[in-house]
Amino acid sequence: MLQSTLFTKTRREAPKDEEARNAKLLIRAGFIYKEMAGVYSFLPLGLLVLNKVVELIRKEMNALGGQEVFLSALQDRSVWEKTGRFDDRAVDIWFKTALKNKSELGLSFTHEEPLTRIAKDQINSFRDLPRYVYQFQTKFRNEKRAKSGILRTREFLMKDLYSFSKDEKEHAEFYEKAKESYKRIFEKVGIGEFTYLTYASGGSFSKYSHEFQTIASAGEDLIRLCGKCKVAVNDEIFAEQKVCPSCGEKNLKEEKAVEVGNIFTLGTRFSDSFGLNYADEKGVSRPVFMGSYGIGPGRLIGAVAEIRSDASGLVWPDAIAPFALHLLALPGSEQTRLKADKLYGDLTSESVSVLYDDRDARAGEKFADADLIGLPRRVVVSEKALAEGKIEIKNRRTGKVEMIDESQFLKYLKSNASQIS
Amino acid sequence: MLQSTLFTKTRREAPKDEEARNAKLLIRAGFIYKEMAGVYSFLPLGLLVLNKVVELIRKEMNALGGQEVFLSALQDRSVWEKTGRFDDRAVDIWFKTALKNKSELGLSFTHEEPLTRIAKDQINSFRDLPRYVYQFQTKFRNEKRAKSGILRTREFLMKDLYSFSKDEKEHAEFYEKAKESYKRIFEKVGIGEFTYLTYASGGSFSKYSHEFQTIASAGEDLIRLCGKCKVAVNDEIFAEQKVCPSCGEKNLKEEKAVEVGNIFTLGTRFSDSFGLNYADEKGVSRPVFMGSYGIGPGRLIGAVAEIRSDASGLVWPDAIAPFALHLLALPGSEQTRLKADKLYGDLTSESVSVLYDDRDARAGEKFADADLIGLPRRVVVSEKALAEGKIEIKNRRTGKVEMIDESQFLKYLKSNASQIS
Repeated sequence: MLQSTLFTKTRREAPKDEEARNAKLLIRAGFIYKEMAGVYSFLPLGLLVLNKVVELIRKEMNALGGQEVFLSALQDRSVWEKTGRFDDRAVDIWFKTALKNKSELGLSFTHEEPLTRIAKDQINSFRDLPRYVYQFQTKFRNEKRAKSGILRTREFLMKDLYSFSKDEKEHAEFYEKAKESYKRIFEKVGIGEFTYLTYASGGSFSKYSHEFQTIASAGEDLIRLCGKCKVAVNDEIFAEQKVCPSCGEKNLKEEKAVEVGNIFTLGTRFSDSFGLNYADEKGVSRPVFMGSYGIGPGRLIGAVAEIRSDASGLVWPDAIAPFALHLLALPGSEQTRLKADKLYGDLTSESVSVLYDDRDARAGEKFADADLIGLPRRVVVSEKALAEGKIEIKNRRTGKVEMIDESQFLKYLKSNASQIS
Repeated sequence: MLQSTLFTKTRREAPKDEEARNAKLLIRAGFIYKEMAGVYSFLPLGLLVLNKVVELIRKEMNALGGQEVFLSALQDRSVWEKTGRFDDRAVDIWFKTALKNKSELGLSFTHEEPLTRIAKDQINSFRDLPRYVYQFQTKFRNEKRAKSGILRTREFLMKDLYSFSKDEKEHAEFYEKAKESYKRIFEKVGIGEFTYLTYASGGSFSKYSHEFQTIASAGEDLIRLCGKCKVAVNDEIFAEQKVCPSCGEKNLKEEKAVEVGNIFTLGTRFSDSFGLNYADEKGVSRPVFMGSYGIGPGRLIGAVAEIRSDASGLVWPDAIAPFALHLLALPGSEQTRLKADKLYGDLTSESVSVLYDDRDARAGEKFADADLIGLPRRVVVSEKALAEGKIEIKNRRTGKVEMIDESQFLKYLKSNASQIS
């Protein structure tokens, strides 16, 4: 895309009330807009990233056998009264609203209740199990404080998957698969090496649940890392048992972290409330055994922005960068500009996704914008380099610069094609 | 996909409180779930249709030069006070909610105000214009009554595009392009022949705005059709001028219709309120000239369901069908089943999207489900036909049945490949 036509411009300053590094960078680079504390809109560059994250998660959910749905945000009070969760004393982060006739409604902060009700129409027999149902849908949470940028917001997109299994054994097998799937997701978006499977409190049906915690100084959580097992425990578990639940190690390292995902054994809590039962092979009625599995794509992007950034700006991993290349035409002769235009055309017809800085602007401004926006590779067409028949390509992460023969440039890109698409 | 593993089952009956044909059929076929009056969730088959509609609209918006964003649902009161539209006396369909500190928030029913505020950071000069920005985002509208199924809901996905132009002339050119784009969309989803460009009231900046109205007995609107011009006028315009605004024809035919889209000249109403100005070529400050362009993908699906259906169920047009083929294995010999399994494998590896009814169910049940779900083509593998080396294919819309040589079946499909993908 031509940067001269991009809806957003970069900004020197983030809003004064913005404290979080992730939001400061994402706002300055034009990825998001702060509507109010804890509420952000996604602008074109940010939505490109969000859509890539969503698509990457969707593929993993489909590979798990997930079927995608899209449930409503408006919530019927009576459905939540079945579990006692409509009450603000039971759940203190509801946003409530009302119909014209004054009936109170909730805005979904999660979807166990409505989905369990839907499942009751669909699941009757052991033949209908297991089922895995997921969605990408906005959650609303009335947080008291919201000062960590897009790491904790009052409105956010969430991928939530719910598993419906015949029994605990069938559930446990899926739970382990989901764990591996989550690990692959964090690996792919570029935070794998900083993200730890973390033991958390399990509720009535399981000793533990699991969070995925990403080490980051902006994190609101405190976890303890076991250097031996490469797992962590959250505050609650640490307070209870003071040792690694996996190997018994006592020397755990305290770290600030961001919860980027969680998986949870729900057991029959919701099935019991809604009467979600199935007839087993012998015709005996049994409650469906459930689990839930969440990832917030927006928060994930916030975690990437915290970790994958430097003093000059964002540093996107290939898999979720809004474009593969940032092509810069530096001010110079008409010839230079024509070369850059031609290169943009060639790259586009090779299906390489390119942001082309075709603006009439100083070189310094273009370099600063490229660093701030943080595409994985910056390609510079300048009069000086062209005089020697060269095009410059710089890796945003490593800083490595290569001068490639003009005639070899497309060939060079193709030989690195796995990374640029 | 294997129908034995599909999350949803068809139902004989729709909920008793459901009056609308579109919702009755879509609920019975397992496409949507009624959460409460005017609020529906999309189940796997329904979401496949919704995503196809969204993708089809997205392509058209991108072709218009649109840049996609995703704005928040929660709305800051102060932003809407700039236009006086936060007041319930000005806008009577708000859902309101509140933060913990009691600050009142709105749930977006449209996005002119927040987007105009964002645009103020991005648009300063004639070089920044025109810009076209769109999104697919949930709108909330606190309708007093909601009894037309997914034709009028309290929560719905909407594609809303906003145009920012230098002046009325630049705006008018885009407005005409958007009109053509909308016509193509309605054509592609299969309601083109029933959908009329309809003159509606224009507000302060234009004599007319335009609705796209689809003739349907379930429609809540009344329009008057001009047989000569193939355009229509809405009630308001008809009350004012009683003739076709295009040719002056007096004999207009009254029809019930569903508004499936609208395009609107906003002029400088919002730019004025927010001070969204730009410096022209001479450095003179001028207000940006705006337009808005809406389509509700859910309502569109509702209109298709109203029009493209018969006594037995839904009749999806190819472009938005959840799958291209419904493959039915009829009860019979082990051999029959193996043939059907193999055909499913072959079709899948040819990238044909197939719903395979592999369930252990009676033929009559399978036929009834296939008619209700309404995929464009039903392919039946039966012992009887296989004895003669044949596979049956039936067109859901025309009812035409063909018996194809088993050995020629894939070849036959490929020769019709443009329709099945």
